[in-house]
Amino acid sequence: MPLFYQPLIPEGIRSLEHEESRHAVKVLRLKSGDPLQLTDGKGSLYKAVVTEISKSSCHFSISETIRIPERNFSIHVAIAPTKNTDRMEWFVEKVTEIGIEEISFIQCENSERMVINMERITKKAISAVKQAGQVRLPTIHPISNIETIIAQPADQKFIAHVDHNNPKHLKEAALQSNYLVLIGPEGDFTQQEIDKATEKGFEKVSLGPSILRTETAGLVACHILNLINT
Amino acid sequence: MPLFYQPLIPEGIRSLEHEESRHAVKVLRLKSGDPLQLTDGKGSLYKAVVTEISKSSCHFSISETIRIPERNFSIHVAIAPTKNTDRMEWFVEKVTEIGIEEISFIQCENSERMVINMERITKKAISAVKQAGQVRLPTIHPISNIETIIAQPADQKFIAHVDHNNPKHLKEAALQSNYLVLIGPEGDFTQQEIDKATEKGFEKVSLGPSILRTETAGLVACHILNLINT
Repeated sequence: MPLFYQPLIPEGIRSLEHEESRHAVKVLRLKSGDPLQLTDGKGSLYKAVVTEISKSSCHFSISETIRIPERNFSIHVAIAPTKNTDRMEWFVEKVTEIGIEEISFIQCENSERMVINMERITKKAISAVKQAGQVRLPTIHPISNIETIIAQPADQKFIAHVDHNNPKHLKEAALQSNYLVLIGPEGDFTQQEIDKATEKGFEKVSLGPSILRTETAGLVACHILNLINT
Repeated sequence: MPLFYQPLIPEGIRSLEHEESRHAVKVLRLKSGDPLQLTDGKGSLYKAVVTEISKSSCHFSISETIRIPERNFSIHVAIAPTKNTDRMEWFVEKVTEIGIEEISFIQCENSERMVINMERITKKAISAVKQAGQVRLPTIHPISNIETIIAQPADQKFIAHVDHNNPKHLKEAALQSNYLVLIGPEGDFTQQEIDKATEKGFEKVSLGPSILRTETAGLVACHILNLINT
């Protein structure tokens, strides 16, 4: 059954937004009386029925609300945006499919991009949530400097960085908890950035033997933390 | 130091191919006497020096050959191509970065695409090998039917499919060995395809609680097997 996204259900809205309506009418050819499922992206799944449908609108009534509990761990990945925006959109899509609670973008000294198109990125996340049958849209923060990022609270804080001190693999370092992982830019974190993070309690970790692109490193970190906990 | 790809080094070739030469000259602005590293994609890393360089050619001499041993496990993922070719190219890039020995494409009953552009896919793999500083290009097979795929030898054979028999998670099922994992199309494997595979010794496995797109499932399977072994 198709899953639709309507964040304003808790506020009483019982119709789909423009693009979702179009999809319901033109692609899925839903008719009055057809069942559908919806999520508000905030943890609820709604079973509903189409009550009225036209070329550009789709109204529904809700028959059942199922509240899905939060996971007993949470993942926050803060990543330096890649020069190529496709790679960041891809990253957001994939971590949303696999499971993530929060995504941040870091302005690093070696960052090649300092701007994030929040609208496009959010659309990718919504589409991935629907695709994966999930009920929670990750919180996506606008880009901010590393000082703001490393001041965020988390039970376990990691910075993906391999140096001669031979850091532990993330899979050995992580316990079940609320995680924040920092992923550096293509030119890596500067020593000053690493020092700032370690002073704030971030532990250096490895993500395995391969040299990974930024977006691959972000995905791999998120997948490791999911695997440990599920 | 830049890593170049020249598969014909074992055959005595000591110059870069056209695109690699262009990259050396135009982007990296290498000059005669500059050091470079090369791989043949077959397990060797070569330390070399530029001997002669022009607008369209780059000759080198090899000073040292380092043979990198094979991994003590191997991963072969056979995947049904997605309708969107970008998603398959992305899959090949990411699994090559993370580490994989063989990639096959399966013609399934529910496949939306039956053609693979081997040249484009191979270019993606070469670029990922260089990016990740690896010395082995995965073997990429042209698309073939499921009977051919499931007749391939492997120590442990898995088919990613969740049903009411509640299959084990891949991370619990896999031992250190040579793996072959089948990843189905967007419309999933048919029951007949699953039966054929299980008759040939394939074990049904889950890849986690999320509903993943085909290319994400392929990546996640490859990453799990890498994580178990490294």
